[in-house]
Amino acid sequence: MLESPLVRKNPSLYVFLPLFYTVWSDSVLTPSEVETMKGLLRSQSWLTDEERDFLLSQINPGSPPTAQELIHWRDSILKISNGSAQKQSLVDLGMAMVKHHTQGEVPSTLQKAKPALDQIEQTLGFISQEGAYHFHSHRDTLTARQATQTTFEVAALTRILEQGEEDIIRKVKTIISDPAFRYPDTTDLRTKREQVLRWAHYLAEQGLGNIAYPNEYGGKGDMAAYFAAMEALSFHDISLVVKFGVQFGLWGMSVYFLGTEKHHRKYLKQIGTLELPGCFAMTETNHGSNVKGIETTATYNHANQTFTIHTPHEQARKEYIGNAALHGRMATVFAKLIIDGKDYGVSAFVVPLRDAHGKVLPGITIEDCGHKMGLNGVDNGIIYFNQVVIPKDDMLDRFSSVTAEGKFDSPIASDNRRFFTMLGTLVGGRIGIPRSSVSTSKTGLTIAIKYSDQRRQFGPEGGEEVPILNYRSHQRRLMPLLANVYALHFSLRYLTHRFLSRTEEDMQEIEALAAGLKAFATWNNTHTLQQCREACGGKGYLTENRIDDLKNDTDIYTTFEGDNTVMLQLVAKSRLSEFKQEFANMNLFGMLNYLGNQAKTSLSEMNPLIVRNTDDDHLLDPEFHLNAFRFRERDILTSAAKRLKRHIESGMDSFDAFNVAQHHLIEVGQAYVERIILEQFQAAVARVADAGCKTVLTRLCALFALSQLEKNKGWYLENGYMEGVKTKAIRKMVNQLCWDIRQEAVPLVDAFDIPESCLAAPIVAKR
Amino acid sequence: MLESPLVRKNPSLYVFLPLFYTVWSDSVLTPSEVETMKGLLRSQSWLTDEERDFLLSQINPGSPPTAQELIHWRDSILKISNGSAQKQSLVDLGMAMVKHHTQGEVPSTLQKAKPALDQIEQTLGFISQEGAYHFHSHRDTLTARQATQTTFEVAALTRILEQGEEDIIRKVKTIISDPAFRYPDTTDLRTKREQVLRWAHYLAEQGLGNIAYPNEYGGKGDMAAYFAAMEALSFHDISLVVKFGVQFGLWGMSVYFLGTEKHHRKYLKQIGTLELPGCFAMTETNHGSNVKGIETTATYNHANQTFTIHTPHEQARKEYIGNAALHGRMATVFAKLIIDGKDYGVSAFVVPLRDAHGKVLPGITIEDCGHKMGLNGVDNGIIYFNQVVIPKDDMLDRFSSVTAEGKFDSPIASDNRRFFTMLGTLVGGRIGIPRSSVSTSKTGLTIAIKYSDQRRQFGPEGGEEVPILNYRSHQRRLMPLLANVYALHFSLRYLTHRFLSRTEEDMQEIEALAAGLKAFATWNNTHTLQQCREACGGKGYLTENRIDDLKNDTDIYTTFEGDNTVMLQLVAKSRLSEFKQEFANMNLFGMLNYLGNQAKTSLSEMNPLIVRNTDDDHLLDPEFHLNAFRFRERDILTSAAKRLKRHIESGMDSFDAFNVAQHHLIEVGQAYVERIILEQFQAAVARVADAGCKTVLTRLCALFALSQLEKNKGWYLENGYMEGVKTKAIRKMVNQLCWDIRQEAVPLVDAFDIPESCLAAPIVAKR
Repeated sequence: MLESPLVRKNPSLYVFLPLFYTVWSDSVLTPSEVETMKGLLRSQSWLTDEERDFLLSQINPGSPPTAQELIHWRDSILKISNGSAQKQSLVDLGMAMVKHHTQGEVPSTLQKAKPALDQIEQTLGFISQEGAYHFHSHRDTLTARQATQTTFEVAALTRILEQGEEDIIRKVKTIISDPAFRYPDTTDLRTKREQVLRWAHYLAEQGLGNIAYPNEYGGKGDMAAYFAAMEALSFHDISLVVKFGVQFGLWGMSVYFLGTEKHHRKYLKQIGTLELPGCFAMTETNHGSNVKGIETTATYNHANQTFTIHTPHEQARKEYIGNAALHGRMATVFAKLIIDGKDYGVSAFVVPLRDAHGKVLPGITIEDCGHKMGLNGVDNGIIYFNQVVIPKDDMLDRFSSVTAEGKFDSPIASDNRRFFTMLGTLVGGRIGIPRSSVSTSKTGLTIAIKYSDQRRQFGPEGGEEVPILNYRSHQRRLMPLLANVYALHFSLRYLTHRFLSRTEEDMQEIEALAAGLKAFATWNNTHTLQQCREACGGKGYLTENRIDDLKNDTDIYTTFEGDNTVMLQLVAKSRLSEFKQEFANMNLFGMLNYLGNQAKTSLSEMNPLIVRNTDDDHLLDPEFHLNAFRFRERDILTSAAKRLKRHIESGMDSFDAFNVAQHHLIEVGQAYVERIILEQFQAAVARVADAGCKTVLTRLCALFALSQLEKNKGWYLENGYMEGVKTKAIRKMVNQLCWDIRQEAVPLVDAFDIPESCLAAPIVAKR
Repeated sequence: MLESPLVRKNPSLYVFLPLFYTVWSDSVLTPSEVETMKGLLRSQSWLTDEERDFLLSQINPGSPPTAQELIHWRDSILKISNGSAQKQSLVDLGMAMVKHHTQGEVPSTLQKAKPALDQIEQTLGFISQEGAYHFHSHRDTLTARQATQTTFEVAALTRILEQGEEDIIRKVKTIISDPAFRYPDTTDLRTKREQVLRWAHYLAEQGLGNIAYPNEYGGKGDMAAYFAAMEALSFHDISLVVKFGVQFGLWGMSVYFLGTEKHHRKYLKQIGTLELPGCFAMTETNHGSNVKGIETTATYNHANQTFTIHTPHEQARKEYIGNAALHGRMATVFAKLIIDGKDYGVSAFVVPLRDAHGKVLPGITIEDCGHKMGLNGVDNGIIYFNQVVIPKDDMLDRFSSVTAEGKFDSPIASDNRRFFTMLGTLVGGRIGIPRSSVSTSKTGLTIAIKYSDQRRQFGPEGGEEVPILNYRSHQRRLMPLLANVYALHFSLRYLTHRFLSRTEEDMQEIEALAAGLKAFATWNNTHTLQQCREACGGKGYLTENRIDDLKNDTDIYTTFEGDNTVMLQLVAKSRLSEFKQEFANMNLFGMLNYLGNQAKTSLSEMNPLIVRNTDDDHLLDPEFHLNAFRFRERDILTSAAKRLKRHIESGMDSFDAFNVAQHHLIEVGQAYVERIILEQFQAAVARVADAGCKTVLTRLCALFALSQLEKNKGWYLENGYMEGVKTKAIRKMVNQLCWDIRQEAVPLVDAFDIPESCLAAPIVAKR
């Protein structure tokens, strides 16, 4: 076209060039585009017939321009447009070309035709508008301009997060930053396990192993420090955390809580120093979640006052037992106590597995669980007992014992209650695991967010590529997870505090809290690390960038210390029994009052104005958030209770009724734990004095609340608590909060203050 | 209590025993329970004062019965109830005890008191009703009775799944069942990689490597067989699948599709036999998704008609390249073609990397990507080129070339179009990967479903434990995923068929189909394997049970061959451009007609009767399903288009507008691909003649449709397409379908006919 004598004669024809170029440079020249252009040309009366035919020939799909020609077209347009940062339409660009070739004059005929040309450009559609950007090298977009900002003091936020636990956290961080804790580059099981054992010894040497035990056994009696240490260690290596937890938590605490003074004196000190490595042998192949069903037996021998520990069949072997395959010398073994042929239920016994030289003792058979998805630094094993005899004194006899006369005895009469009291003392594991999982989520998010802040991919035509964290879908992927982890951080502090200051009456509530938070935090962690992996693309798949180990080591967190699905049902049952009590305690007046309160909710929260309220102030109001969470929690619980009652009253077996409603019950548990988390996050934000931190935490708290409401919007709509216009407004607000928080995302992960050595991922290494 | 003279005197007091036992055996004796019992006792006028005081003393929380006493209580009740399979209330049981101790007589005073006692038992609440089951050893529940049934011929369903590809599938299954393909038990990188290379050689020897290449180069010209082979190989080992895909797919097909006859003659035969191992070197550290931005240069040297291939800076190195770290001897290298200092865009070149002895050639530097989350049998590497000179003939010159005069030439004028045409020829990867991912989902589901059908945990009090697959939450976890995998199976067959019979005009649609199905199938696979891991608990975590490798090897599927988020945006853009065309092609009449059709939807589908219709027939109606999917697809697309138009017309930069709407656009892609999958699943079911298979597939298809509708219920409610009563009915129907399909779940996975040797998981090993 550029070489045509017609164009040289009438430079006005240049006005079509950007349009023509754009049409041809699209991937496909559609029939409709051709028709539209033809119509345009026919309507231009200022063209001669010859000119019109020539122009039509330039957009004939049967004879496209050559690659060389198209390049010339682009170059000639670029010569005119280059450097212009302004957005110009294709027709404007064409006009500029005409002007250039006429030395400044645009013929009036062409001036008059401009509106029609503009019209055509618009008809060609909004996607083609992108075409105009081919010709601008500097393009300024909101998306490209977004960048990291820090509006608060990072160290101040770290202080808020670590408050009350600074000393132990600093100590652990110092230890794990030592070169001795550098990650080994190996896939070999044996090497990994030896490394983790060595690390565990270092921790014991530093006084971390017995920190929770009483002073008289070498400890500090500081259970709070034990949990904080688990959390901080989880920045480093999860095999080590589990090895540490098995030895000092499960093994040591079972002796401490289920045993009596004679056991403490005999074992506790050596456990805390790791001189006596041990196991916690509860789970059997056939019985994991249903601990009550375990089949290992501990038969009392009146003759010589001993117990015989025995595995009655292969599927009753102890399985997945940490420390068993290589290092454990003793184990707390859970078994059914049998006296005179009668089964007195699950009790705990200390049973030796290996001698001081590590040789497996007679009657004990141990197999290695082998390679696992993760945690390969932990030597999990299988244990079989063949008529192993232990002295009477090695029964952990706090909750059940055998009298001198060979009779069963217990301070707790009810089998059920004894069983749950015994398990309840082990609830600490359901605090340690979620706290550990929050640390791995924090590490994953730190890596993914820092990488996404640097990594650039795609950008506006003619502009630089933009950081992928500037993309809305990437923000929606990571920002709500950042909010979750802050929310969980505070609610797990609350759980720990409740546990440490517990009374007997609190225990049922604390167990439900721990079970619920364990389920929420560990599922959230699995989901978070999956998103982090994908957010880092191929880089996230390389083991060197840490997400591999974080993800695979913690994948089992959703299963151990109680399968999450079972945990949420446990929460639901606890909620139902509270609910039952609430009703049972009520007289008629109380009942009416209760129903009246429910009706009041309907009046105040469910009036047509509120279910449709989309004001920003309302959507960001913490009271609205908490009301909505509470309404859902209460409503789901009430309807589940009614449903169960209806089924059972209609003659359905209660086991079947619970099964029919199982999905509903899991929602009861979820709604409860979500409300707790929001409540505790809000309370924590309210306590913050520092203005900068308060602002950013308030925003995170709103994002947590609104992204949960968005996740559950189906339920709120179904139940008339919100209308579509409001849930749509919530989605928009979530988008906006993600956009705002993205700017502070890097300082927000910096506030986790994870040791550099644990962020060993090359993709976030300081350059 | 049993020893009291009062009871011996008046055996009627036995009526309270089961109630008392139950109250005490609950974990906690609540104040309200005590109050209720006290009230009961006070109201019983047939008791003497002494008897009443005695009974009150038995429920004093201050002096509980001893463990021994409680055991005696239970034993004495059990003596009466044992063997009774009938559900009895606690009061009935108490009556039976009275009868036993009075030798058959129940005093009339007690008879009269019964209604009051019943009332109390009810007041104690439904949870306590479970208490009565302590006393029944045989308890028959619906939940326990559910079991595997086969209502169709498994082999017939296998035939339907494999139809048209039976021969190649049988061949591949035979090969991978050979002892030479046994899984090695190693964590060592070198051993794994050598093993996978050896396997790849076996496949080449069996004629699978060149099966898709033309006969003249040793192949069979059978592209369909290539895809089927990828799918069947994916039952075995994913490292092998990727090694196979890199060598025969990416490396071979790039030479085949981007090169011309001279390249085919020179390379194709040796590639197909694996004599010439090679790589596909496209991705660079700085450019993965945005291939257009790669920075490796191929500069044309006029003087001697050669190209110089060069890595201009470290971040422009080729990364993650399969076959590069150890085995590749050549590579298809994507680089910017530079002639006379001018950039002509991305082209492809064949570049030697190693000599025949495996020695890296001068100018080439290769690093090992090291250990990865999975696929450790594949030797991914990093390649740097330092001024490597190759002859002009080694440019793959089908779509761009340099003339004898040293000028750029191409059959496709538009840069954009050339680029996308070039990439489009590689769309096969986006068919192979989702098909492979469906195989790994099938394997995971086979393991998890067979295990859950056998594994028992918990059960009704006094009854046997039940298979975990009988639990509703477990069914809800796995059954919809089983439906998804069937749905994907058929839609991927459709995609393959469309690709194999493609015409030029189809390409845009096929690319969108492939991108969308790739995203859906691979995300679904990641999610499925995660659920399978959790559903198998600790067993799922052991490497020996296969889920570890399945999950970790395929985790990268959501990233490679195109990041899923990018894929869905690609689908959305394709849909928007079709939409634009649809409008552009319309005259005024067409437009009115279109809007009229939309209105008709509102009238027919959104009338108040239909949005509230909860009849089973309606909920199971395939037409209802498809209408709902189509409505959503159309509505999301229309609203996205309007939104973009509004933003751009208000002056927003189009790049920003696309970013603001990014989440919306991803939904456009999702809604499109979901509709395609349903449409193809329905069409496949319609073609089935076998009655048994048709019934079960119809049920699976309904579950697929309804579980998607449930997942998207927030959207349907928000937009008034359904009311809460209907979405609740859908949830109920999903539960019901899960319950029904559970019975056929084992035969449904048996129909996948996965070789025993690939189901090497001990948890599903035949016993």
